[in-house]
Amino acid sequence: MSQQCGVGDFYIKNKGEITMKITLKDGSSKEYSEAKSVYEIAKDISEGLARAACAGEVDGEIVDLRTVLDKDCTLNIITASDEEGLRVIRHTASHVLAQAVKNLFPDAKITIGPAIDDGFYYDFDSQPFSREDLDALEAEMKKIIKQGHEITRFTLPREEAIKFMKEKDEPYKVELIEELPEGEEISFYDQGGFVDLCAGPHLMSTKGVKAFKLTASSMAYWRGDSNKARLHRIYGTAYNKKEDLKAHLERMEEAKKRDHNKLGREMELFTTVDVIGQGLPLMMPKGTKMIMKLQRWIEDLEDKEWGYVRTKTPLMAKSDLYKISGHWDHYLDGMFVLGDPEKDGEEEVMALRPMTCPFQYYVYKAKQHSYRDLPYRMGETSTLFRNEDSGEMHGLTRVRQFTISEGHNVIRPDQCEEELKACFNLNRYVLKVLGLENDVTYRLSKWDPKNTEKYLGDDEYWNSTQEVLRNILIEENVPFVEADGEAAFYGPKIDIQAKNVYGKEDTMVTIQLDCAIAENFDLYYIDQNGDKIRPYIIHRTSLGCYERTLAWLIEHYAGKFPTWLCPEQVRVLPISEKYADYAKKVADELKRNDVDVTVDNRAEKIGYKIREARMDKLPYMLVVGADEEADGTVSVRSRFEGNEGVKPLSDFIDQICKEIRTKEIRVELPEEEKHR
Amino acid sequence: MSQQCGVGDFYIKNKGEITMKITLKDGSSKEYSEAKSVYEIAKDISEGLARAACAGEVDGEIVDLRTVLDKDCTLNIITASDEEGLRVIRHTASHVLAQAVKNLFPDAKITIGPAIDDGFYYDFDSQPFSREDLDALEAEMKKIIKQGHEITRFTLPREEAIKFMKEKDEPYKVELIEELPEGEEISFYDQGGFVDLCAGPHLMSTKGVKAFKLTASSMAYWRGDSNKARLHRIYGTAYNKKEDLKAHLERMEEAKKRDHNKLGREMELFTTVDVIGQGLPLMMPKGTKMIMKLQRWIEDLEDKEWGYVRTKTPLMAKSDLYKISGHWDHYLDGMFVLGDPEKDGEEEVMALRPMTCPFQYYVYKAKQHSYRDLPYRMGETSTLFRNEDSGEMHGLTRVRQFTISEGHNVIRPDQCEEELKACFNLNRYVLKVLGLENDVTYRLSKWDPKNTEKYLGDDEYWNSTQEVLRNILIEENVPFVEADGEAAFYGPKIDIQAKNVYGKEDTMVTIQLDCAIAENFDLYYIDQNGDKIRPYIIHRTSLGCYERTLAWLIEHYAGKFPTWLCPEQVRVLPISEKYADYAKKVADELKRNDVDVTVDNRAEKIGYKIREARMDKLPYMLVVGADEEADGTVSVRSRFEGNEGVKPLSDFIDQICKEIRTKEIRVELPEEEKHR
Repeated sequence: MSQQCGVGDFYIKNKGEITMKITLKDGSSKEYSEAKSVYEIAKDISEGLARAACAGEVDGEIVDLRTVLDKDCTLNIITASDEEGLRVIRHTASHVLAQAVKNLFPDAKITIGPAIDDGFYYDFDSQPFSREDLDALEAEMKKIIKQGHEITRFTLPREEAIKFMKEKDEPYKVELIEELPEGEEISFYDQGGFVDLCAGPHLMSTKGVKAFKLTASSMAYWRGDSNKARLHRIYGTAYNKKEDLKAHLERMEEAKKRDHNKLGREMELFTTVDVIGQGLPLMMPKGTKMIMKLQRWIEDLEDKEWGYVRTKTPLMAKSDLYKISGHWDHYLDGMFVLGDPEKDGEEEVMALRPMTCPFQYYVYKAKQHSYRDLPYRMGETSTLFRNEDSGEMHGLTRVRQFTISEGHNVIRPDQCEEELKACFNLNRYVLKVLGLENDVTYRLSKWDPKNTEKYLGDDEYWNSTQEVLRNILIEENVPFVEADGEAAFYGPKIDIQAKNVYGKEDTMVTIQLDCAIAENFDLYYIDQNGDKIRPYIIHRTSLGCYERTLAWLIEHYAGKFPTWLCPEQVRVLPISEKYADYAKKVADELKRNDVDVTVDNRAEKIGYKIREARMDKLPYMLVVGADEEADGTVSVRSRFEGNEGVKPLSDFIDQICKEIRTKEIRVELPEEEKHR
Repeated sequence: MSQQCGVGDFYIKNKGEITMKITLKDGSSKEYSEAKSVYEIAKDISEGLARAACAGEVDGEIVDLRTVLDKDCTLNIITASDEEGLRVIRHTASHVLAQAVKNLFPDAKITIGPAIDDGFYYDFDSQPFSREDLDALEAEMKKIIKQGHEITRFTLPREEAIKFMKEKDEPYKVELIEELPEGEEISFYDQGGFVDLCAGPHLMSTKGVKAFKLTASSMAYWRGDSNKARLHRIYGTAYNKKEDLKAHLERMEEAKKRDHNKLGREMELFTTVDVIGQGLPLMMPKGTKMIMKLQRWIEDLEDKEWGYVRTKTPLMAKSDLYKISGHWDHYLDGMFVLGDPEKDGEEEVMALRPMTCPFQYYVYKAKQHSYRDLPYRMGETSTLFRNEDSGEMHGLTRVRQFTISEGHNVIRPDQCEEELKACFNLNRYVLKVLGLENDVTYRLSKWDPKNTEKYLGDDEYWNSTQEVLRNILIEENVPFVEADGEAAFYGPKIDIQAKNVYGKEDTMVTIQLDCAIAENFDLYYIDQNGDKIRPYIIHRTSLGCYERTLAWLIEHYAGKFPTWLCPEQVRVLPISEKYADYAKKVADELKRNDVDVTVDNRAEKIGYKIREARMDKLPYMLVVGADEEADGTVSVRSRFEGNEGVKPLSDFIDQICKEIRTKEIRVELPEEEKHR
């Protein structure tokens, strides 16, 4: 069967008399008088390269090493040191896993098993898998790898492919094939008799999976849809070398300790509840307080220092509004609709808002504005709703409802560059205060020129607006990448990106230029001559989504937040009940100075109270006993330096108030350098 | 036809030989040996009473004066000095209006025309009515009144009634009759040939409408449903005496100036937008700022002084949650549902929350609590959604989405009284600071003992919980009324009520006791013996709904808010461009002290700027020119006392900061006593 393989132009069925020129990545070239597989060419270059090779990149397309070339093309040999090479290794590892599952659990049905960032998974319709099952599967996988099955590709016409998978009693594969177009040739990969529907590419042999680990199992839904079949997913990872795998697993161990979805729950910052639903976290009192501190800071910053007015607009609107904004046509799937969209027109159909834009436009429209009033900057602490698939939801970072420091700046065209820079600088200031400025990368998010029907506006509109944003990034002298297909449907964006502890990248902050929407909403200002002129709109946030920012802060600081952000900044620890009154006096004085303080009045030993406060990652503990009460002092222990000595209470208040006011990020000494 | 009238026991067709005893309101009684109409008995009591009589109250039921009594009963003669008497006059006036409309606009179709608080309306399927139309209709009504048509009642079997109204080509009346049960006798009222479907009662003659006015016309929907026919409504009012009408119209003129729905828009505090929808106001920058000030004050008050923790919970949840809370069974009509409730169980059906309760219960449940931790008080600045009928929406007081200072206190049963008192005292403190404490009345809202299936719990539960709340009101020594059928479905309430400028009463603040719900949600605390005990829950707010409170403040203060609440507290007015720099310096210094300040830098005369600032109801204007710049002073003009003289800037800052910090409500002198 392995001789049946063939896809597109790169395959031939009979090698013949030809001449072809293969241009390599370094610009050099090789000529052959007969068709050659990618692997053969790699070997021709060097034995070492052939050993390291995972796949080939032919004229930009990633293909199997077995793929035979028979005409002029460019070729890049992909190895495990390329991201793509690792993906091939991991994809092959996922097939090895599926084969192992079929060996040990013959009733399991296979569904899909892709490579993902940092690893792979495979979903099975099966029993749940315990850690013991995973251990057994790892052993089985090692056996399969050792057996060194050749991995070969073959294709079948669609109808035969369906029959083939029906015979194997794999209904999920049948469903997948049935959705492919009529007349399509369907590709499969075979390894020692285990055959999987797959587009590839794969390694040449199971032996190529040199270092792997099954890391976890979880529940999943077929196609991520909670109304469809319940599946069981096994996560794993694979590397080319044992050392790389070991380093990765250690990194993951470290990351888990910082994982906001774990640490945030342990620290009682948030929780989730089954009967409320996925992607709808509940902020616990401590998490609420942190978000309040962030929110008030941003609101005051915008209001008092950056010239924003504030709005508070409804969280829902009739379909009429979203038709004007374009969301009804371009974003309906992402919205929560109240009522039946099919009955729109007959009945009142409303939807929860996915963005604040059209609502703030009507605040602008409620008054007439002159050219002198612009920029008109509107900020809102705005709750938004996105109808995410249940499979996509995660902790505080992928949610169905979130709160954002949303804003829209209505500007004259001549103010465009200056205002964009101001927005960018506000973002950078906020990141700096939060200590996150070195976590980020910058991205110019452009439309997808191959998919223009998803967007408002034409070529010229996109080229010119993208150019404006590109110039800002160049002038502000930050390194950035450009990405097609990442724009909003109404305009390009500057995205500020950050990675979570596991390396997954998300957009944290965004600035968007929109020169098109003013027309739809009939927004205008009156110029010097009394004429009505269309303004531009900048869609921007100051710090993005509060929930996601909290997740970021948890992971960045491993829960040891700067003092000003801590929900509990100080805990007073009386050494015995006798000093409860003085402890209360100290706490009251701190409260009067807006410090978040508690008293630990439990009848526990002082050592125990101190240990617990440390575990809670508190910035300050104030131990009080007879001496402190007599002298009006406090014995200060901090997370930063350990024992900071006995101080008059007023001195400590001055110190912490300054630290809070200036939003200082105190550095923590290494454990061994802390004062005892 | 008038002899056909007859309803229930009070009518007979032939007067016969009988003896009946009529017990009057004052306890005295009269005996008659023959049947008598209410009017005849009134006349027998006194000619004056007969002249003033509008209707009779027979064994608690309001009936026509023409109603004939033939057996023992209690009787109260209703006059225009009773609220019910005025309702009868107004209801008759609405029929006179309908007759006038049919005379002048014969194509108009009649629909419904009830008496309402302070007047009446009638909805027509017709052309819109201009003020000129209303004037013409008033003249026609006067004609009809002068003609003194007798108003008589008759009934028809349901089928004949339908035929009758079909012949008159009144399709809305036909629809109304068709909805009444088969076999029902349908009552009509006739006045000079104009016949209306009506349950009555009415005056005896159109002459009884002695003083009336048509006040407005507006659009309306058949049955308040925007998917049904568009109608035109005429509002009017009627009184027994011309002086009463005049006084009422003057009061309304005064009220209109304070009406938040008018003044709030004029002051740019909020707006509404057709394409967004009814009951979804947009807070403009100034209104947003006022709500922010209220919100932060309440949040800090709860947090720092009243022992609350804060939560931030999702605005939606799966139906599962509302099934546990009882909202799915008892409140589904009032909720916005995401998805099809009929498909609940097959698909994920969610709903926007109408209350915060079940969400906060899960915050409580996320940790184990001991008896020492209680009361556990949770506060949330919470947005809620209620699916109000479109006909009920009004300004900021009847809305579909609102934000409330919601909270739930989980308490031990032994803490019940003390904690309820604390909640009540917090409410009274908040009202006092806002200057609203004399606007309110208190209500004990009880279940409806005739309609117990609408509620959770039994007789004993309701009697005991109502008794607890009654005792609080008695002990706190406030006058209160008791109202059946006003409780929440899970428990009784103390409601703090206030009236709007037109006299319409609304609930502003509420405290509810709930000893039942802990069971449903399996809430518990651990007592001294390590046992799990069910807590009680108090549902409470600190100031209620922010939007409604803002409406209240607008109307109470006619827009002249206490300084601390003003969105713009100070405006600096340079007397010419030369002093723009000093004006900016003054403003910056005020901003640094957290004062909301603007500068009026326009090239306008100073007199014009001052007039405009007065129109904007600003507390303070600071005029600055050469002298002020030279001396570092400001010339202070206030809304309270007029010219307050020239002061060093630092003195003014001390003064206003103290006023803001203490939330002082400065009294405004009468215009003639203000300093020039």
